[in-house]
Amino acid sequence: MSNNSNETSSTDWLQQIKWNADGLVPVIVQDANDSTILMFAWMNQESLAITVSEGYATYWSRSRQRLWRKGEESGHRQHIIELRLDCDHDALLIKVEQIGGIACHTGRRSCFFRIYKKGQWEINDPIIVDPTIIYKH
Amino acid sequence: MSNNSNETSSTDWLQQIKWNADGLVPVIVQDANDSTILMFAWMNQESLAITVSEGYATYWSRSRQRLWRKGEESGHRQHIIELRLDCDHDALLIKVEQIGGIACHTGRRSCFFRIYKKGQWEINDPIIVDPTIIYKH
Repeated sequence: MSNNSNETSSTDWLQQIKWNADGLVPVIVQDANDSTILMFAWMNQESLAITVSEGYATYWSRSRQRLWRKGEESGHRQHIIELRLDCDHDALLIKVEQIGGIACHTGRRSCFFRIYKKGQWEINDPIIVDPTIIYKH
Repeated sequence: MSNNSNETSSTDWLQQIKWNADGLVPVIVQDANDSTILMFAWMNQESLAITVSEGYATYWSRSRQRLWRKGEESGHRQHIIELRLDCDHDALLIKVEQIGGIACHTGRRSCFFRIYKKGQWEINDPIIVDPTIIYKH
């Protein structure tokens, strides 16, 4: 994403978002190439500003209560191609280039790997890389 | 979506979802044909059970605090093609056939019609049908 002095000098675009009571906005993450939904996450103002400034997705981790630069451990960063806001100003859609082709911490391409079938959630998508290999310390 | 006695007799699949403090789960709505993201909404247990039972999307309207059968006024119902749950059990993705081709109350196809460009949210997508025509009373 381009960045210039106008962009960084005004935060109107951030104020136009309706942040929830926790100061967060939901974010849908879509593969820019084939439109697969990769994951769903949350951003606060700081993480969205960083995302736009750096051109790579940074989220707010609600479980860890801290900024989460996607891929900081796995290397599976998300390069921002497009950023969209919805009609109610309370949800974001980002289209990304998924580095490594894996968005999910289970080693799958997408977090949405369970499909509803006759009263059950069936696992549908394969593990591409074992997470113990992705998250080796 | 198919429905049989097994399905209706067990609600395990509903219990497996991590409902938030308000009893809701976020729902990403994607066009089953071309993968466009149409909208983002919320469901409670009752609305999800109705959605699966009827085969058309029913949401929980947070602003109106009531069940919202999508298309009840506009006719723009959403026929459920596929229902997915994410790795953390706290977000849903539904793929739908969008009746009438319009999901947004502004008369646009998708609610995500604003694109971020150089510090501004620019309206990108056209109004297909004037909402005063869609919502004539």
